[in-house]
Amino acid sequence: MFFHTKRFQYNAKPDNPDPIFAKQMQELLGGQWGEISVMMTYLFQGWNFRGPAKYRDMLMDTATEEIGHVEMIATMIARLLETSPVETEEAANAGGVVGAVLGGSDTQEAILAGMNPQHAIVTGGGAAPTDSQGYPWNSRYTIASGNLLADMRFNVTAESQGRLQVARLYQLTNDSGVRDMFSFLLARDTMHQNQWLAAIEELEKDGLEETPVPSNFPQEREMSEVAYRFMNFSEGTESQEGRWASGPSKDGKGQFEYVAEPAAMGPQVEKLDPPVEPRLYSTPKQPMPPASS
Amino acid sequence: MFFHTKRFQYNAKPDNPDPIFAKQMQELLGGQWGEISVMMTYLFQGWNFRGPAKYRDMLMDTATEEIGHVEMIATMIARLLETSPVETEEAANAGGVVGAVLGGSDTQEAILAGMNPQHAIVTGGGAAPTDSQGYPWNSRYTIASGNLLADMRFNVTAESQGRLQVARLYQLTNDSGVRDMFSFLLARDTMHQNQWLAAIEELEKDGLEETPVPSNFPQEREMSEVAYRFMNFSEGTESQEGRWASGPSKDGKGQFEYVAEPAAMGPQVEKLDPPVEPRLYSTPKQPMPPASS
Amino acid sequence: MFFHTKRFQYNAKPDNPDPIFAKQMQELLGGQWGEISVMMTYLFQGWNFRGPAKYRDMLMDTATEEIGHVEMIATMIARLLETSPVETEEAANAGGVVGAVLGGSDTQEAILAGMNPQHAIVTGGGAAPTDSQGYPWNSRYTIASGNLLADMRFNVTAESQGRLQVARLYQLTNDSGVRDMFSFLLARDTMHQNQWLAAIEELEKDGLEETPVPSNFPQEREMSEVAYRFMNFSEGTESQEGRWASGPSKDGKGQFEYVAEPAAMGPQVEKLDPPVEPRLYSTPKQPMPPASS
Amino acid sequence: MFFHTKRFQYNAKPDNPDPIFAKQMQELLGGQWGEISVMMTYLFQGWNFRGPAKYRDMLMDTATEEIGHVEMIATMIARLLETSPVETEEAANAGGVVGAVLGGSDTQEAILAGMNPQHAIVTGGGAAPTDSQGYPWNSRYTIASGNLLADMRFNVTAESQGRLQVARLYQLTNDSGVRDMFSFLLARDTMHQNQWLAAIEELEKDGLEETPVPSNFPQEREMSEVAYRFMNFSEGTESQEGRWASGPSKDGKGQFEYVAEPAAMGPQVEKLDPPVEPRLYSTPKQPMPPASS
Amino acid sequence: MFFHTKRFQYNAKPDNPDPIFAKQMQELLGGQWGEISVMMTYLFQGWNFRGPAKYRDMLMDTATEEIGHVEMIATMIARLLETSPVETEEAANAGGVVGAVLGGSDTQEAILAGMNPQHAIVTGGGAAPTDSQGYPWNSRYTIASGNLLADMRFNVTAESQGRLQVARLYQLTNDSGVRDMFSFLLARDTMHQNQWLAAIEELEKDGLEETPVPSNFPQEREMSEVAYRFMNFSEGTESQEGRWASGPSKDGKGQFEYVAEPAAMGPQVEKLDPPVEPRLYSTPKQPMPPASS
Amino acid sequence: MFFHTKRFQYNAKPDNPDPIFAKQMQELLGGQWGEISVMMTYLFQGWNFRGPAKYRDMLMDTATEEIGHVEMIATMIARLLETSPVETEEAANAGGVVGAVLGGSDTQEAILAGMNPQHAIVTGGGAAPTDSQGYPWNSRYTIASGNLLADMRFNVTAESQGRLQVARLYQLTNDSGVRDMFSFLLARDTMHQNQWLAAIEELEKDGLEETPVPSNFPQEREMSEVAYRFMNFSEGTESQEGRWASGPSKDGKGQFEYVAEPAAMGPQVEKLDPPVEPRLYSTPKQPMPPASS
Repeated sequence: MFFHTKRFQYNAKPDNPDPIFAKQMQELLGGQWGEISVMMTYLFQGWNFRGPAKYRDMLMDTATEEIGHVEMIATMIARLLETSPVETEEAANAGGVVGAVLGGSDTQEAILAGMNPQHAIVTGGGAAPTDSQGYPWNSRYTIASGNLLADMRFNVTAESQGRLQVARLYQLTNDSGVRDMFSFLLARDTMHQNQWLAAIEELEKDGLEETPVPSNFPQEREMSEVAYRFMNFSEGTESQEGRWASGPSKDGKGQFEYVAEPAAMGPQVEKLDPPVEPRLYSTPKQPMPPASS
Repeated sequence: MFFHTKRFQYNAKPDNPDPIFAKQMQELLGGQWGEISVMMTYLFQGWNFRGPAKYRDMLMDTATEEIGHVEMIATMIARLLETSPVETEEAANAGGVVGAVLGGSDTQEAILAGMNPQHAIVTGGGAAPTDSQGYPWNSRYTIASGNLLADMRFNVTAESQGRLQVARLYQLTNDSGVRDMFSFLLARDTMHQNQWLAAIEELEKDGLEETPVPSNFPQEREMSEVAYRFMNFSEGTESQEGRWASGPSKDGKGQFEYVAEPAAMGPQVEKLDPPVEPRLYSTPKQPMPPASS
Repeated sequence: MFFHTKRFQYNAKPDNPDPIFAKQMQELLGGQWGEISVMMTYLFQGWNFRGPAKYRDMLMDTATEEIGHVEMIATMIARLLETSPVETEEAANAGGVVGAVLGGSDTQEAILAGMNPQHAIVTGGGAAPTDSQGYPWNSRYTIASGNLLADMRFNVTAESQGRLQVARLYQLTNDSGVRDMFSFLLARDTMHQNQWLAAIEELEKDGLEETPVPSNFPQEREMSEVAYRFMNFSEGTESQEGRWASGPSKDGKGQFEYVAEPAAMGPQVEKLDPPVEPRLYSTPKQPMPPASS
Repeated sequence: MFFHTKRFQYNAKPDNPDPIFAKQMQELLGGQWGEISVMMTYLFQGWNFRGPAKYRDMLMDTATEEIGHVEMIATMIARLLETSPVETEEAANAGGVVGAVLGGSDTQEAILAGMNPQHAIVTGGGAAPTDSQGYPWNSRYTIASGNLLADMRFNVTAESQGRLQVARLYQLTNDSGVRDMFSFLLARDTMHQNQWLAAIEELEKDGLEETPVPSNFPQEREMSEVAYRFMNFSEGTESQEGRWASGPSKDGKGQFEYVAEPAAMGPQVEKLDPPVEPRLYSTPKQPMPPASS
Repeated sequence: MFFHTKRFQYNAKPDNPDPIFAKQMQELLGGQWGEISVMMTYLFQGWNFRGPAKYRDMLMDTATEEIGHVEMIATMIARLLETSPVETEEAANAGGVVGAVLGGSDTQEAILAGMNPQHAIVTGGGAAPTDSQGYPWNSRYTIASGNLLADMRFNVTAESQGRLQVARLYQLTNDSGVRDMFSFLLARDTMHQNQWLAAIEELEKDGLEETPVPSNFPQEREMSEVAYRFMNFSEGTESQEGRWASGPSKDGKGQFEYVAEPAAMGPQVEKLDPPVEPRLYSTPKQPMPPASS
Repeated sequence: MFFHTKRFQYNAKPDNPDPIFAKQMQELLGGQWGEISVMMTYLFQGWNFRGPAKYRDMLMDTATEEIGHVEMIATMIARLLETSPVETEEAANAGGVVGAVLGGSDTQEAILAGMNPQHAIVTGGGAAPTDSQGYPWNSRYTIASGNLLADMRFNVTAESQGRLQVARLYQLTNDSGVRDMFSFLLARDTMHQNQWLAAIEELEKDGLEETPVPSNFPQEREMSEVAYRFMNFSEGTESQEGRWASGPSKDGKGQFEYVAEPAAMGPQVEKLDPPVEPRLYSTPKQPMPPASS
């Protein structure tokens, strides 16, 4: 069960309205690597988890923090839209980011052309659970497989992609209020990258899982002769120069090998057979069976 | 530019048709963590890459291998559907997996109820680029951010989730032809997990990127006091017991701290302000400006 | 069965082309609350309905009217695009809305940047069944549950959201031809809001359904002690001041109560149990059964 | 900011595993009218709201309660899947719902054919944020327009559709643990239908909004002569018998009229004009301008 | 503007309920090649068309017919679901298709496992605008490019895929009522395939468009030396045996040529250049500019 | 199995960066009729095919060529984005297409408003597998039915729509590098339109399939009296003037007939019956059965 307090985890107030940046910043809210994605991912990983309490508790802690991040970003976007498009002209004259660039009587029209039209028509000046292109968030961005090493590798990825996007957006605005909130989010993403890397270390140390995931699949059922071979499928052999082409494998269970000219190990591609069931009407057409119902 | 040879990379032939398993196996073809996803992800990472040749070459090698995996799995599914639903009854009597369970004159109807109806109606006994629920593959499963550490963390995840799913599907069939192909795919996924972990090591060694991603964002613009704090947002403190709660951080740049009762650092949530632009017709309704156009 | 006449229900001709407004106006055609949504919703409610003829007839009447609304809006958008982007410059000079704002030799490029690129590339100057962000209409916007009170509540919502969006778009254009058509649509939405509210009154009067929907679910199987309690899950008690916190409930079957500090009525969250089936390879990993197939 | 307690709001434990019902029950979690939809809808309505505190507080209260409902349902589904498909046969013999119906050595295969394959392959026995057909939840199910009367009409709809679906699922199971949780959810949905109806009464009493939404759009810009006319677009006049065809309109601002044979008020449909811009290559093809770039 | 009559274009009544076939038959309603797709495609082609009246009239005729086909199929599906799942057991005993196969007390559970769960939970026994896998119809299935030859080629395809699917579904049922309606739909699809082929002949005869589409793109801007070459990109030369490899091209403007070993005509793939803009934080990381904002 | 060479099939280098055109050009990469669609369509048609080798070989040849087209277009887009938005101002001053139009200190902001924000935030200057509106590519654009005449009709359509879009994009840029690549793609699309038309001729000549698809459905089961009738469902009879209204049908099996006033051949639409199963809680509500579980 959850409770809500009426303070933000950190500041969420821009200096000035900026509908163009509001559009761009939607990526952090409803984008594939935005805050709704990590909130939902950690919640489902926590709810579905069947192992030691410290992992479940940790997942629920961070999941709950992320609901608060969604709250801050949604509020920031709504405030960037506080002055409606109809009124932005005045704000522009008063020095907003958009105003610093576009001026005179044309401001309104130009901003309308560039902003997310749904911020006016659909949400009436509120944040939307969509990305910077207006594409709706969907639950395929929620990853919870039951295997915590597979999932925590995803979590490290999510915090890396997320911090990368905040850093890029930081360059697209000069608003000190927005940048203040970003300084907080960047730091939390630094923590979360470290946290999931540490959790992976802990998982392996506790013997819960290891490389290759899943590690309790019976080794003898894997075709071991190709388990550590790098195969070169394109011209040139620059790919031979990397760590992945020689030396001990990262799981400590094999030696990397470089195969410069990988041979096909399978048979000649032959025609699918039998050719066609007549009642599926595929090509080539076949005579219909006489008693066909 | 690409060329096609007419041999499979490995065997792709089941012992017997099995339309129920064909439905389930679609997850490996058009699912979020299936082979189309890794093929497209590695292709786009390669095509968009702007760094040293060995990385780009390696990405293109593995991307090209994956097109061949898509080929094998699509072929396997088509063969699992080789006998049409109308005819499966005979196959069942001859000892297929389905036949081992369901028998007599009811077979056809029961199989039709459980199989993917689009395997009959839409593809006419062919594989479809969808997952095991019939949901179409989409390009949100393709990840290529330009930041190779962020992306290779994704690649490790993809190979972990993918190998996990092959292992689970291995348990859902007894067909020795299917299992033979799975033994090959499991081994290649073992290699690829190792490969991306080795590539991450190489990237860091070469100084191309490190934790936290992106590492060249100016440190002083991050709010450093919260960059290594674990915050406890749920009852109980089991989460204090893990590696993430104390000791040096994984990036070697800080010390983990545990905050048992995190305080809100932001202001009281206040009403969004100004309340409402009248011409957006939001709540509470406002008088219309007299000269409103 | 349906027939088509060759007159529009009302005028659908703009004074001037305006590709930016054409993009925005797509929301009324292919948006979640656009005309395709109400057309399809009323059609499916009518086709699936199993009750008295007057309701089915009424649903089909309004559904059929809505096909004509889709026709008008699609035509209006095609006409707003009548001058191709390549040619809009001249129209602009001749005084179109866009022309009033942007001028000189830069017009063409600026319009191209702001318009929906698919209006040029995909539809060749025609309307598209998508929303103002280019997101395709989908049938999840069609609501038909079989329970007419639940569905007519949706219909009131749809006409409210729809009229709200027309009113907002009215502010984004000065074109008198567009505004003329909007004056018609606004009035029809006024009628339709009233119509569905009246139909709800009729449904209840006829004894077909009432609050709570569904009303023939046996009362004794509901946990009645929480059926009229407002629960306060956030700091502060401003929520106590509303009609929902005290007095008789709207269905006349209970009294609202305010619970300032709601207690959890369920058990402590415990670990899911049994921990892990080994052959699903989840965390923590388990020994494989010896005879595992 | 949010906090998590470690108790459920109510019980969430089935008597027996039942993978078929787990598939069906996903509708309440990730379906269009499931708990994620109301949680997200109320959160965004609260975050975007710009009016009196009592409404915002009330929205946040109920939004926060709904996060706890998502938690209960996700947990229930995970428990319905607790015994993996591989092991369900034993559970079946021990008397589960599935076991009551299907028996003998065929159990496993039959269940596998009917269950959601992703419950085994993708989530490893956990709940998924998708509906009963495996279609992912998406944010188009989140409605927050800024106009609270439009939105609260949606909220009444959502609680009506939601309660209807719980009632239908109640009939699809005999498990007393599942039914116990449903008795709680049904009662909360009864409260929430009443709550939103009461909130609409309050909104109107407080003068924040009224029918037709939006009520501050200038009346004189609407084409008033069609604002209260019911138009008959299909054969027969059964639709004349309802409350919507005569008497005062529900907003008290007009009189319903019945138009048995509605005339087209617009012009003859004519060809779109000008016919075709040559450089869009539409039909009929036009000569290319000589100096075309 | 449209009108509705109260008779079906043809019969739409099954002999018996059959919830499994109702699921399969959804493909014809809300599938990619179902009736909603052709209805919407022809409507949009008609509304967007800017050429001679006979084409527009013909498009609107057939579009309007298709609305009536959607009506018949939606009604048929609702009737196949007429007996609710809870009651199907009796129907089964009375001889429905499902009943012919599954019997005794297990019927209900087995049908529930195989049917579309949303037919019970979401639509309450009505048809849904989704396909046989429950995937919602979306407007990407609507094709209207403005170029009528391109679009009529699509129309021939749509009627071919559609008739193919009806023919396949014909084999999946023995219900004489369903097959009666199918005999009508198959014949109309025969007409429509012929109609679009005839319309293509007419378009070319009238000089409105020809191969290659678009034919008024200036020939000299195309790289003519590769405009009629078949290129062999896979092992073997079976592809040389077809009509496409030699002889006059179908547009009468060239001669087919077979290129057995196509050479790359482009440059060596080189590294994208410049390598990385530092403020996008891509790989390899670059020093930040000193004055970076 | 596939191999990659390190040369492009043709040139893929623009003269200048142009982020606005990069957004528009995405339509050719990840749009419905873009290169990913034809690559995947031909691959799946080839892999699923069960007929003569020359067709399968031909499908694989062209499929493999298309992978190389995807490669060229992805590279072109990445190069159009080579100068980051932050730096485009300089490029603009140096004479890029954007620069030719927009100038002075406002350039950066205006470009940011018009470009695809995900090209900066998500891909970091790389191509994305989405269309010009940012909508992700999905596998519903892959058509492979098993019936090769139905599918090759689709292939002709795809190459027609594709060439049409390239021609339109040709008009939206003056960049000679881009136009050089387009001259190659236009020519290949000319070939491919001819190729599929020739393949259809071959298919029919070889007796594999003919009109109406599928041609081996037993003629006597089709309702032949409506198989060649054009039905007029809208006012006026302009549609009588075309080839589709009289003369021999295109399949040579009938005579077109024009039906000016098509009669309904089905019964009066009646109420669905039985009215409502009480346990589905639809309208009108029914008394619950006494012993209802």
